[in-house]
Amino acid sequence: MNPNILPNFLKNRAMLTPNRVAIVFKDKRLTFKELYEEAYYRAGVLTASGVTDKAYVGFLVKSDLYTVISLLALQIIGAKAVLLNNRLTVDELVYQLNDARVGFLVTEPVFDLVCKQIRGQMPALNIMGKQDATSYTEPIEKKIIHLADTCTIMYTSGTTGFPKGVIQTYGNHWWSTMGSVLNLGLHEKDAWLCAVPLFHISGYSILIRSIVYGIKLVLHDHFEVDKILRAIEKEKISIMSVVTTMLHKIESAVEKSLPSTFRCMLLGGGPASLDLLNRCMDKGIPVYYSYGMTETSSQIVTLAPEYSTTKIGSCGKALFPAQIKIIDDKGNETSANIPGEIAVYGPNVSQGYLNKGKSSMDGWFHTGDIGYIDSEGFLFVLDRRTDLIISGGENIYPAEVEGVLTAINGIIDAGVVGEKNEEWGEVPVAFVVKEHNVLLTEETILNICKQKLARYKVPKKVYFLSEIPRNASKKILRRKLRN
Amino acid sequence: MNPNILPNFLKNRAMLTPNRVAIVFKDKRLTFKELYEEAYYRAGVLTASGVTDKAYVGFLVKSDLYTVISLLALQIIGAKAVLLNNRLTVDELVYQLNDARVGFLVTEPVFDLVCKQIRGQMPALNIMGKQDATSYTEPIEKKIIHLADTCTIMYTSGTTGFPKGVIQTYGNHWWSTMGSVLNLGLHEKDAWLCAVPLFHISGYSILIRSIVYGIKLVLHDHFEVDKILRAIEKEKISIMSVVTTMLHKIESAVEKSLPSTFRCMLLGGGPASLDLLNRCMDKGIPVYYSYGMTETSSQIVTLAPEYSTTKIGSCGKALFPAQIKIIDDKGNETSANIPGEIAVYGPNVSQGYLNKGKSSMDGWFHTGDIGYIDSEGFLFVLDRRTDLIISGGENIYPAEVEGVLTAINGIIDAGVVGEKNEEWGEVPVAFVVKEHNVLLTEETILNICKQKLARYKVPKKVYFLSEIPRNASKKILRRKLRN
Ligand SMILES: Nc1ncnc2c1ncn2[C@@H]1O[C@H](COP(=O)(O)O)[C@@H](O)[C@H]1O
Ligand SMILES: Nc1ncnc2c1ncn2[C@@H]1O[C@H](COP(=O)(O)O)[C@@H](O)[C@H]1O
Ligand SMILES: [Ca+2]
Ligand SMILES: [Ca+2]
Repeated sequence: MNPNILPNFLKNRAMLTPNRVAIVFKDKRLTFKELYEEAYYRAGVLTASGVTDKAYVGFLVKSDLYTVISLLALQIIGAKAVLLNNRLTVDELVYQLNDARVGFLVTEPVFDLVCKQIRGQMPALNIMGKQDATSYTEPIEKKIIHLADTCTIMYTSGTTGFPKGVIQTYGNHWWSTMGSVLNLGLHEKDAWLCAVPLFHISGYSILIRSIVYGIKLVLHDHFEVDKILRAIEKEKISIMSVVTTMLHKIESAVEKSLPSTFRCMLLGGGPASLDLLNRCMDKGIPVYYSYGMTETSSQIVTLAPEYSTTKIGSCGKALFPAQIKIIDDKGNETSANIPGEIAVYGPNVSQGYLNKGKSSMDGWFHTGDIGYIDSEGFLFVLDRRTDLIISGGENIYPAEVEGVLTAINGIIDAGVVGEKNEEWGEVPVAFVVKEHNVLLTEETILNICKQKLARYKVPKKVYFLSEIPRNASKKILRRKLRN
Repeated sequence: MNPNILPNFLKNRAMLTPNRVAIVFKDKRLTFKELYEEAYYRAGVLTASGVTDKAYVGFLVKSDLYTVISLLALQIIGAKAVLLNNRLTVDELVYQLNDARVGFLVTEPVFDLVCKQIRGQMPALNIMGKQDATSYTEPIEKKIIHLADTCTIMYTSGTTGFPKGVIQTYGNHWWSTMGSVLNLGLHEKDAWLCAVPLFHISGYSILIRSIVYGIKLVLHDHFEVDKILRAIEKEKISIMSVVTTMLHKIESAVEKSLPSTFRCMLLGGGPASLDLLNRCMDKGIPVYYSYGMTETSSQIVTLAPEYSTTKIGSCGKALFPAQIKIIDDKGNETSANIPGEIAVYGPNVSQGYLNKGKSSMDGWFHTGDIGYIDSEGFLFVLDRRTDLIISGGENIYPAEVEGVLTAINGIIDAGVVGEKNEEWGEVPVAFVVKEHNVLLTEETILNICKQKLARYKVPKKVYFLSEIPRNASKKILRRKLRN
């Protein structure tokens, strides 16, 4: 037996428990059988458009039922989904579409203007409305899947500020799902609320879990706290994935406690304050604080409930199939309580980036994040990878914003850091050095940024300096900028 | 990342949830940390005796705490456990020990006499008491495991009557565990009662699940219905594995219903009558009826609870990672409702038998069992592999008993079939053809059988015939014998 062959996830689930509710979106409610049939039909439409198992298909979409159907249609065909952050600018999108050599783009009317501009730069791109259906060809169905096959591509940036496409295989998703179930458990009546974007691993992984576990996915296309609380009640939600800003709003809005059917608030995507965690505890909101990244196909370290009081602030221990260690400058493992770079290992960890070769040699992925593991094995994250700013769950890489700023005529140097913010956790602010006697206002600079960068990446403020503080090796001293 | 490398199961579990109760046996109660420490110590004792990761170590033991500790000690070292059915005769044991090239035998005082006789035939065998400790050498611990590595060997017989050692890798066990969790779910307070032998896959798989899931294993060294019911109450058992004879007794003994903490009676190992299943349903005993075998590392097909009324008698659908199909004489897949041989596929299915080469060419394991799959995908088992008799959960292969009978001086031919029995489900009965004028009584024949065969295999009755009914190709017509 090849241990790395499994039945196609959705087809199998539809066969196993056809009549269980698979997904709820607004007033629509589909069973696994119905979801499979819809995805199968969509696979036929995509096949008619020329999508094959070799294709990389871009997704510029909102998080709704038809996005789910199209994503699952790709799994039926075996085509690879390139999930684009729908808040990116045309330039950013074109960069990723070119980098992934995308031939087809699935989208919807709200993005018409953006798509027109994309087409201007990529005339050969085949752009398809996610609900359009001009013709249908019986799809060649992948009845079995190889765990090593690529399922999704999601872009993330490193130190250089250039986004790279993280390869997530079916195996990465599968093992992530298994790691999670061994920590969170699985109840027959579980229902998972998804109000995070499907184009992020936080959202896509909920879709995979729904299918593998056979549980209900309740999908919201945006986060609105009143609607969320009503859904938790009405749909008997037991698990919800949140980023800090969402949890903040939920905690404030919850009057007494959540319904007893609710059992897990999976918090990830960035740091959380002890204050917030404490307040949740007071209200009996069961928070599972986790650490993970696009490269680990969602959470890889999660605090089990039994430690939520004694180890508050820690994001826990590695999920069962995974391993973590802390390494020093020389690449050696540190002792307990000694900070260093967090390295991770496991079958949920991506093998590397699209068209960029392996992400590591020894199998350990070096995250760039700084933290320590205490003597009982609990991970504490101290600092994020290369100055990453996290704003409302979205990542902002300073180097990327700095690149845009220094490309502006009249700007010699620039530094970007995060500033604490009530609502978003952090927002980016810029420090720039202008050429002598150049006339450049904050407004002009921000207008240029808005053309080049997704809104959430645009600095909230520009400060003019005579010099950006740098160390001997010319690295920006961000700590100095922050003060 | 190599997707087939995981942290050592027990070491990892002891790190993740050190203080959860791992095992309860009589008045002993160990946490995962304590269980790991005990197993680690035992690994040192075994290492001092010369056991290495290359060793095949026989186990002739009862199902108790120290057996569990020794079995887990082998996993720490990476040595392979050859699990012997402790009801076998010396001849049967020696056959398996030789076949598996076993160098070490872990045993205990109750088997002293048997071991003495084994040593007579295998003077080089290193026999060790499972609680003895003469010396200790720091073990070389396998901190990670490769899923392809062999974990256990369990013997089973095929058509020929010669037992073959089924190779079960860590991967087979792991995937079996995953298939089960996706069907049965996993609750934080789950506790699994094991009153089936640890040397059968039904018992060993509970041990693996306890460690991988991090749940309590309550171990009984034999089945006694009163004690079982008391344990279910006292230890808040949620899941129990049973064979038909056990379930019979439990159903009779349960007065009203089981405690509400109890959620799953996992029934396997052989056919169950509709009558029994119905009676369980009436008493609210939640039965998950399953199909599996040593080669599939426990259940591979299980009836999900939502179908227990509408599909009674079916053992359900394949677990998520596995596949099943029915094949005709020519090896082609049959249509719905058409009976044929049951073939199975999946990462939980053994790659083959020890020192015998692969069990199949195309990856599909042909079980020898007969059944059909209905139009909704539910499996119904009609007949067992090559006339297998199942008596109180133990397998009896007619060919094996027939081999012993025909080896007796004065017996020309023999046929063995199962006879319905209230207590055991079935018992073997023999039909023999004597040479002309030979004096051979039932008693003499049975005495010889008792020396050669485990008690449960010895025919309960011997009938003398003038001829064994056979078809044109000399195959015994067992159906005729049964009437
Ligand atoms: N629990 C956490 N505490 C601090 N930072 C986190 C945490 N979880 C995720 N992050 C950061 O978010 C990054 C992953 O971003 P992404 O790939 O968008 O999920 C990680 O590399 C960390 O820098
Ligand atoms: N649900 C079932 N119905 C009928 N026979 C079964 C069932 N489950 C297991 N068996 C039989 O038991 C055999 C496995 O024996 P063992 O390897 O001892 O577990 C299978 O090949 C079947 O012949
Ligand atoms: Ca993020
Ligand atoms: Ca059996």
